[in-house]
Amino acid sequence: MASSSAFSTWTLNGSSVVPEATKNFGGIICHYQTGCFKETVRCLSMRVSADMPHSWELPNDKLVASGLGRLSLKNKVQCSALEVDMKPSYSVGNKFQLEDVIEAQQFDRNTLSAIFEVALEMEKIEKNSARSQILKGYLMATLFYEPSTRTRLSFESAMKRLGGEVLTTENAREFSSAAKGETLEDTIRTIEGYSDIIVLRHFESGAARKAAATASVPIINAGDGPGQHPTQALLDVYTIQREIGKLDGIKVGLVGDLAYGRTVRSLAYLLAQYEDVKIYFVSPEVVKMKNDIKDHLTSSGVEWEECSDLMEVASTCDVVYQTRIQRERFGERVDLYEEARGKYIVDRDVLGVMQKHAVVMHPLPRLDDITVDVDMDPRAAYFRQAKNGLYIRMALLKLLLLGW
Amino acid sequence: MASSSAFSTWTLNGSSVVPEATKNFGGIICHYQTGCFKETVRCLSMRVSADMPHSWELPNDKLVASGLGRLSLKNKVQCSALEVDMKPSYSVGNKFQLEDVIEAQQFDRNTLSAIFEVALEMEKIEKNSARSQILKGYLMATLFYEPSTRTRLSFESAMKRLGGEVLTTENAREFSSAAKGETLEDTIRTIEGYSDIIVLRHFESGAARKAAATASVPIINAGDGPGQHPTQALLDVYTIQREIGKLDGIKVGLVGDLAYGRTVRSLAYLLAQYEDVKIYFVSPEVVKMKNDIKDHLTSSGVEWEECSDLMEVASTCDVVYQTRIQRERFGERVDLYEEARGKYIVDRDVLGVMQKHAVVMHPLPRLDDITVDVDMDPRAAYFRQAKNGLYIRMALLKLLLLGW
Amino acid sequence: MASSSAFSTWTLNGSSVVPEATKNFGGIICHYQTGCFKETVRCLSMRVSADMPHSWELPNDKLVASGLGRLSLKNKVQCSALEVDMKPSYSVGNKFQLEDVIEAQQFDRNTLSAIFEVALEMEKIEKNSARSQILKGYLMATLFYEPSTRTRLSFESAMKRLGGEVLTTENAREFSSAAKGETLEDTIRTIEGYSDIIVLRHFESGAARKAAATASVPIINAGDGPGQHPTQALLDVYTIQREIGKLDGIKVGLVGDLAYGRTVRSLAYLLAQYEDVKIYFVSPEVVKMKNDIKDHLTSSGVEWEECSDLMEVASTCDVVYQTRIQRERFGERVDLYEEARGKYIVDRDVLGVMQKHAVVMHPLPRLDDITVDVDMDPRAAYFRQAKNGLYIRMALLKLLLLGW
Repeated sequence: MASSSAFSTWTLNGSSVVPEATKNFGGIICHYQTGCFKETVRCLSMRVSADMPHSWELPNDKLVASGLGRLSLKNKVQCSALEVDMKPSYSVGNKFQLEDVIEAQQFDRNTLSAIFEVALEMEKIEKNSARSQILKGYLMATLFYEPSTRTRLSFESAMKRLGGEVLTTENAREFSSAAKGETLEDTIRTIEGYSDIIVLRHFESGAARKAAATASVPIINAGDGPGQHPTQALLDVYTIQREIGKLDGIKVGLVGDLAYGRTVRSLAYLLAQYEDVKIYFVSPEVVKMKNDIKDHLTSSGVEWEECSDLMEVASTCDVVYQTRIQRERFGERVDLYEEARGKYIVDRDVLGVMQKHAVVMHPLPRLDDITVDVDMDPRAAYFRQAKNGLYIRMALLKLLLLGW
Repeated sequence: MASSSAFSTWTLNGSSVVPEATKNFGGIICHYQTGCFKETVRCLSMRVSADMPHSWELPNDKLVASGLGRLSLKNKVQCSALEVDMKPSYSVGNKFQLEDVIEAQQFDRNTLSAIFEVALEMEKIEKNSARSQILKGYLMATLFYEPSTRTRLSFESAMKRLGGEVLTTENAREFSSAAKGETLEDTIRTIEGYSDIIVLRHFESGAARKAAATASVPIINAGDGPGQHPTQALLDVYTIQREIGKLDGIKVGLVGDLAYGRTVRSLAYLLAQYEDVKIYFVSPEVVKMKNDIKDHLTSSGVEWEECSDLMEVASTCDVVYQTRIQRERFGERVDLYEEARGKYIVDRDVLGVMQKHAVVMHPLPRLDDITVDVDMDPRAAYFRQAKNGLYIRMALLKLLLLGW
Repeated sequence: MASSSAFSTWTLNGSSVVPEATKNFGGIICHYQTGCFKETVRCLSMRVSADMPHSWELPNDKLVASGLGRLSLKNKVQCSALEVDMKPSYSVGNKFQLEDVIEAQQFDRNTLSAIFEVALEMEKIEKNSARSQILKGYLMATLFYEPSTRTRLSFESAMKRLGGEVLTTENAREFSSAAKGETLEDTIRTIEGYSDIIVLRHFESGAARKAAATASVPIINAGDGPGQHPTQALLDVYTIQREIGKLDGIKVGLVGDLAYGRTVRSLAYLLAQYEDVKIYFVSPEVVKMKNDIKDHLTSSGVEWEECSDLMEVASTCDVVYQTRIQRERFGERVDLYEEARGKYIVDRDVLGVMQKHAVVMHPLPRLDDITVDVDMDPRAAYFRQAKNGLYIRMALLKLLLLGW
């Protein structure tokens, strides 16, 4: 959602206001003069214009922070718009306010740790047969411009496990007014009127950020094209924490398509926040990890190494993170594809050299990049990893709608 | 749903019955002789045959009106069918019973005013964080033969905001047994067994009326092809009432595609119910308002005028109702299209001449027919208008399922 | 779900266990030694490997049967996998435990009778305006690899009528990771993490059985290609019971496409469980009932006869079960198709020779195989039959999730 930092001033209905972060919910309070507003029309969106001659006092009974940690207007005050730079307003530490989930980079080590704490609570809630109703009365819209059944069902399950309700759009690109040329911003402004939170999957990089700048409700990025898929990155790190018991001092082998796979790129980014992490890149030449991530790791003090021997890496690592290599990356060189594919399969031989406490992870779907006989081994963590996606999403929904 | 007026007689199971409107819910009571019915089978639908030799008394404990204002059969009486002319049975005045929502013309001024009163209540309910559960246990089916994400989500949100549940069919035309050649009537008879109310979007004009004649549950027309889209018409009038504060004595400029746009046609029709309304038609020659509406306005005593100068109209009107002009209406004359398009854009210049209390409306999606810089002006009412669709649909669901 | 019979032994985490059916819920208890398990990882799936040197005791507080009659693991025991032959574990008699619904053949006469008893309860629940909440907190996933709006909505309505929630996938084949080559087993292992029961519609015969062998949650087969559609078979038999009042001693005419129609094949199979049943096959030569069913009927002591005269059969039978004949079955012989079609239509003439207590049934959708004027006759049972699908599915959901 459109958030703000303290001390900005906005123009509201031609007059300007001063937003101010309040202590108890990380929200916004506007100071303004009542007289300049039209009393008969409700406020739907807030947006800031550039000019702001001076500021006004807002009586508390007019514009108040809702219990949801969201901006809301009591009664009949009209605001035209409010626009602020998108900037996460949660504070680092044990109390914070999430406003949107846009990209893996927005989470620091402390925030991750706080989210994981809530996710662990969620595991307990989900297993308890007396189901939770903490999100009863809340409505989540899954606005998917490209289909992703796994991700969509995971979010919808998370919402319903907490007693919330869901509006579903499985194929917004083809079906909605987007087909008639409506901008994403306009669609968001309509959908936010029908729901309390929007989960957005889009084919364009940056779509989630654009949506969050417009929306007055929280936006969760469920993947925007080649860009970000932050909830996948969170569940990956959460899974390592749950399976290995720690994040500092771990050795992780990233295997497969490292150039285009957004999950391994995000994961590498998040791992850089931890101490003494060592990352091994195991991939065919054609889909090697790109330099931006390598540079970031280096500058963050993370040791990394490229290695072509999967067995050697597997025998050393705490985590073997396998990904699917797509034929189309190899163009005409089918021979290189076939060679690469055969070389980087996780099978019982790989398991054989792995340590007892180590795990195999995979973002799924897998094809033949992990053989089926690996599934029976307790170290096969990929279905538990998928399930962790549920807990992470439950945690995020709880944090975004109810706060810490 | 299939409704009736008093004093018709029907044949039921080979015997005839006399339906009678009861005072308290506008429903139907059948008088029939118990003996002629098979006791072991429940009634699913009622339908009248042409011949009716004489009539019978219905004991109250056999066929009763449910609390929902719907026909229902207690226990095991079997009826084959009941068919009557579809005719709204609500009475004009402050108490009435809605049975279906089929077309804008079914609503008179008093009914509109009663619906708007309920919609205003719904605004309060939606804003209240203690969510309403008045439709808890009710099931709405959205049977959409063509996709319309905006309309569908708006109805589904309305149902869920009141505690009800939803069965969704996003693309019934392609997916359902319609593809195998099933008639709409047969589909309705199946779906009505699974739900308490059906929201129907269809590609054929008249489909909603056909469905209502068959169904034993209420039908809401969510658009039937080039025909009607009555909930859009209701939300448009409601928006004018909310934004301008009155409906008598207003001046409305209808801009854009007036020939094919069903929203402006329905709106003109409904406005004819109010006093001292003046309507300005602003459109390219190719898509001028058709004569049927003009004649209706004239015969209803509504003043109207065709005008090619948007600025002049904007400076006079309380409401500038913009619509999208579609290129395909102009055939080969792309030059005329480009000219028309440029001429009828609502931008800050148009805002500049508009009165302070006036508003810009649009059924959405908009393309470049309203420039984005207009959004920030308080007079830009189109997103509030979209939100009003939620309140109107909440009101209709409440009225159809629970009554006044 | 993966079920077991007593006395099998499994290898669990490299150690073996003995599963044992308990009396009170027909479930599984594993005997194993705690020490050999990793304590930090939760169990997601259980699977048996072939080798099993010896068995261990399972402390009751580690692996317990949930109140749902499903296997569940308390806390932190890790199991890799459990695989057993799929075999329904409910006992014949008045108490039983359903674990999956895979094929019509899994139900014997006593089980059918018990299911119908619950379905009758469900009719009362559905008609009661105080809606049931017995499945509150339960989540059903409808995983449809091919669209079937009627079946999907019927299941979703059943779940919601009992207070449960639904995750919907209308077109999993096209949209999900199946398109990327994921196996059904992998998809099931992901979806079971998000839901409490899976309703599967698939294009491949045997898919439901495959899913049930993998899943730790109950699977309901909602049609797997040319294979089975057991809930349709159940609702057909239930409808005969409700309409005719008995199943022993009835005469049933199966009409239309008997070669490819899976409903008539399953129905014939289930009817073979009852006494003194007489079946008439009425069909064009091209789509005659196949020998496997005829042989089964003969060996079950069911009298059957092939007959080309629909009027004669109709005058004798308690049930005329009509089905749609598909043109494509006739290849180039359009003349034969047209002849067959005209010959086997149920119209008012057929009604005229039928007995007063007899009924016409049809799995729907119908085209012109039953004329519309038949609908008005009380003996037209096909829409009541469709509604019975709701009660049967409510009953199955109740039995699978809550037990008897």
